[in-house]
Amino acid sequence: MWRAGSQTWLHHLSKAGKLCVPAINVNDSVTKQKFDNLYCCRESILDSLKKTADIMFGGKQVAVCGYGEVGKGCSAALKAMGSIVYITEIDPICALQACMDGFRLAKLGDVVRQVDMVITCTGNKNIVVREHMDLMKNGCVVCNMGRSNTEIDVNSLRTPELVWQHVRAQVDHIIWPDGKRIVLLAEGRVLNLSSSTVPIYVLSITATTQALALIELFNAPEGRYKQDVYLLPKKLDEYVASLHLQTFDARLTELTDEQAKYTGLSKYGPFKPSYYR
Amino acid sequence: MWRAGSQTWLHHLSKAGKLCVPAINVNDSVTKQKFDNLYCCRESILDSLKKTADIMFGGKQVAVCGYGEVGKGCSAALKAMGSIVYITEIDPICALQACMDGFRLAKLGDVVRQVDMVITCTGNKNIVVREHMDLMKNGCVVCNMGRSNTEIDVNSLRTPELVWQHVRAQVDHIIWPDGKRIVLLAEGRVLNLSSSTVPIYVLSITATTQALALIELFNAPEGRYKQDVYLLPKKLDEYVASLHLQTFDARLTELTDEQAKYTGLSKYGPFKPSYYR
Amino acid sequence: MWRAGSQTWLHHLSKAGKLCVPAINVNDSVTKQKFDNLYCCRESILDSLKKTADIMFGGKQVAVCGYGEVGKGCSAALKAMGSIVYITEIDPICALQACMDGFRLAKLGDVVRQVDMVITCTGNKNIVVREHMDLMKNGCVVCNMGRSNTEIDVNSLRTPELVWQHVRAQVDHIIWPDGKRIVLLAEGRVLNLSSSTVPIYVLSITATTQALALIELFNAPEGRYKQDVYLLPKKLDEYVASLHLQTFDARLTELTDEQAKYTGLSKYGPFKPSYYR
Amino acid sequence: MWRAGSQTWLHHLSKAGKLCVPAINVNDSVTKQKFDNLYCCRESILDSLKKTADIMFGGKQVAVCGYGEVGKGCSAALKAMGSIVYITEIDPICALQACMDGFRLAKLGDVVRQVDMVITCTGNKNIVVREHMDLMKNGCVVCNMGRSNTEIDVNSLRTPELVWQHVRAQVDHIIWPDGKRIVLLAEGRVLNLSSSTVPIYVLSITATTQALALIELFNAPEGRYKQDVYLLPKKLDEYVASLHLQTFDARLTELTDEQAKYTGLSKYGPFKPSYYR
Repeated sequence: MWRAGSQTWLHHLSKAGKLCVPAINVNDSVTKQKFDNLYCCRESILDSLKKTADIMFGGKQVAVCGYGEVGKGCSAALKAMGSIVYITEIDPICALQACMDGFRLAKLGDVVRQVDMVITCTGNKNIVVREHMDLMKNGCVVCNMGRSNTEIDVNSLRTPELVWQHVRAQVDHIIWPDGKRIVLLAEGRVLNLSSSTVPIYVLSITATTQALALIELFNAPEGRYKQDVYLLPKKLDEYVASLHLQTFDARLTELTDEQAKYTGLSKYGPFKPSYYR
Repeated sequence: MWRAGSQTWLHHLSKAGKLCVPAINVNDSVTKQKFDNLYCCRESILDSLKKTADIMFGGKQVAVCGYGEVGKGCSAALKAMGSIVYITEIDPICALQACMDGFRLAKLGDVVRQVDMVITCTGNKNIVVREHMDLMKNGCVVCNMGRSNTEIDVNSLRTPELVWQHVRAQVDHIIWPDGKRIVLLAEGRVLNLSSSTVPIYVLSITATTQALALIELFNAPEGRYKQDVYLLPKKLDEYVASLHLQTFDARLTELTDEQAKYTGLSKYGPFKPSYYR
Repeated sequence: MWRAGSQTWLHHLSKAGKLCVPAINVNDSVTKQKFDNLYCCRESILDSLKKTADIMFGGKQVAVCGYGEVGKGCSAALKAMGSIVYITEIDPICALQACMDGFRLAKLGDVVRQVDMVITCTGNKNIVVREHMDLMKNGCVVCNMGRSNTEIDVNSLRTPELVWQHVRAQVDHIIWPDGKRIVLLAEGRVLNLSSSTVPIYVLSITATTQALALIELFNAPEGRYKQDVYLLPKKLDEYVASLHLQTFDARLTELTDEQAKYTGLSKYGPFKPSYYR
Repeated sequence: MWRAGSQTWLHHLSKAGKLCVPAINVNDSVTKQKFDNLYCCRESILDSLKKTADIMFGGKQVAVCGYGEVGKGCSAALKAMGSIVYITEIDPICALQACMDGFRLAKLGDVVRQVDMVITCTGNKNIVVREHMDLMKNGCVVCNMGRSNTEIDVNSLRTPELVWQHVRAQVDHIIWPDGKRIVLLAEGRVLNLSSSTVPIYVLSITATTQALALIELFNAPEGRYKQDVYLLPKKLDEYVASLHLQTFDARLTELTDEQAKYTGLSKYGPFKPSYYR
């Protein structure tokens, strides 16, 4: 029951037959995904960029690599602040969503000369490589909101002809022989974990999800869970959400008996099939 | 392999052991969900309301019942046009999303006196009942974007003391004894199917999804599918999306060999686990 | 005291000494500008395009020529519906606003090959000329929200090698020898006046402004107005707005005596200098 | 030629016959207004709130007092981040704009019990008084983006029964006898000047405006300016904007000779009447 990014690793273990206990992949629970990834990043990308690079967002051109939950949060926030955002994607479904949400879908190489900022959110490796950085314009900001260390090929910048200038915490200028600078944030580590705070509300959601998953595994009758990776049961996912609604002075509607019967749902949930997101 | 709203019926049949062939629930494929429900409704709610009630959206207060894909599309469009939107929900996860998206979560009874419009998008029955309509203010517009006929209790309006005035196609005024009128659209049937057109692009996505599902069922080797209800295989879902990207002059990124190896993905998909939405 | 577009003409008359009565340019009153131009166009551009071309907005690339109130309304609406909008401008102040609002500022010639739609909102002439239309891609929609007849050089399309096909009311296909079609709406006349309705609310604002201006001119003491063009007095402009607030169940705050004294304002307005917009 | 807030003072001096030199009110130039007030505040309100109160914006209810340029910037940013925003206004024109932009117009007293934050942007005094603060809920954040010191009646909080707890720079908790806390930022001084940085781009626009105004006054022929307060000439305003367009890789369109003649404009501006905003 680990955090974001670890689910792939759990599945690897499970496939290899090396997982010795049942595991719940809380990262893919709906509540966790939406809050820790989408909604949290929507705010922390702005916060982190202000705190480190102190840039104005209005009118800036930005490439966001990856349109999963993190990419969706980052690009929505930047668009709302007046940036022009290009999305790169490998998955045609996410790509089509980016189009319908009003973003140009491009390859990084095609827009890297013109953008003021590149943000990686893919969970993959070597998304921004030296060839890209050689093409960037002076002052381009490069940072990572996805998987730590791997997305930007920072090692390719540790070559003799480039000068590193440490400007302040989390900010390095990399200077090309012709004087061009790119602004590298957090040396390619995850930007919001390095430079921003996580709202206590999001932390509460994540911690509640983790605690409930542990309790579920502990209390489960013999045989319910094998040495495999499970999703958080829908009903627990809904319970986490309901606990956090009161902060917003939000009033939930209850099914009438007639409506419960009509839809075949219990009045106490779960309200959606387990695959519903 | 039926359309929106029929999946519950299929599952009923399947549970009752009465489903005599394998079925693919294309309605819950990602591409279909997002396009036929979210993106299509985002546009057709505005179109339908203009064509029937011809109202100005700016400054209007609207209650949207249900925050699934249809409710998300309708409320996003109306908010973008300057309406103030209240959401009602039974599912705490969707409710929390509504809060984070900037909508007040309310019970219909608590806001029904003040709103200029009520739109049902729940898939359930008797969401708007006579008691609500008795409380609505003069000129309030009532319409349904969810399940045909059931969401608004139209029958409760067919009583002697209320006068029905047919104003034009899809528009009836229901007149209370004190002169108050509510504007009922499409007699409670699905508004955008009654009053708007479906963009050819969305039709193409839906039809492609359906055709591919049929081909999949027809070509599948003996035993792959039993007499049950299945989701469209992820890879076909991605294929539908990729076929529709070219309209947008969109350029998809391809995984490098190194990236494919790192993530354990094929370069040709599927790119997400089957439960990913 | 004429409508939109006529103010230039009034100023011409005045400069030439041919204006024989005082005139109030109601078109440039704040309330009229914002409602008849900005807020009305924000809704009617979507309505008009659906009713005529029946296109899906999501993912479409659109060039909007001119970023005055009409251009601001059109581009905000299309962006909100998921279109990618390019702005053309001659005025650097409006151009900078477009940038800060998240639009790419381009010359029409530079983007005309790639866009799915061109909308003119400049009040000028020959914004879209034959050379542009020769470069457009198949299916490109061309329409005008600015000054009637002049912005699109429609006459340049009435040449023997092009075939006109009247598809339905307000929609013509112009067919090039190679089969390419462009979709011309309302033959270049003002699209929303041709194909959409004006909300009664906006009509009420415009009519009230006009009526109050007439009353002001009629009642004014000898000598207050000469044979010149005036703006609507700020206080009347505010009065029009206050009359229309009640529709929205909106509650205005009143200055306390102390606050009125501190700011040097009357509690009953006007609240802004006359040049304030 | 002073900064924001000083224009009223200049006009006072001028009316009293005490202004001994000509003055240009650069604060009311279009470029200055839009950038230093609207666009800058749109970003700095988020930045300042994160740096001081470290709150999550999504789902929060916020009262913004005043819907001038500063209030417009603050409320647009917070709405974009998922907050629910109420506006208070005295001016019916700005109030109507708030309605059409999708905000509820309310009196502060009517919403002060339910909001999570109050932001003053009026330029007036005693907008938030002790009676309001007595009604606020536990944890409510109170801050000022308008005129320094005057908008929140901070003195009314310096009474024996309330305990002040200095939490960190710019953040005080004021504790009521029953344990309720409100979070006062920057002791009521202007929040973004206290807690955020001004983007160098905005500083450049403001400084350029000021320098050009000084040059204009210095170079003006005898008699052009008297001992009065003037707006920046439109042409200089446009010049400031054009100098700052290149950052955005923005391409301005030029009038053709024919278009210049048709509109009666010079190809080099000014492009709008002086009262145009």
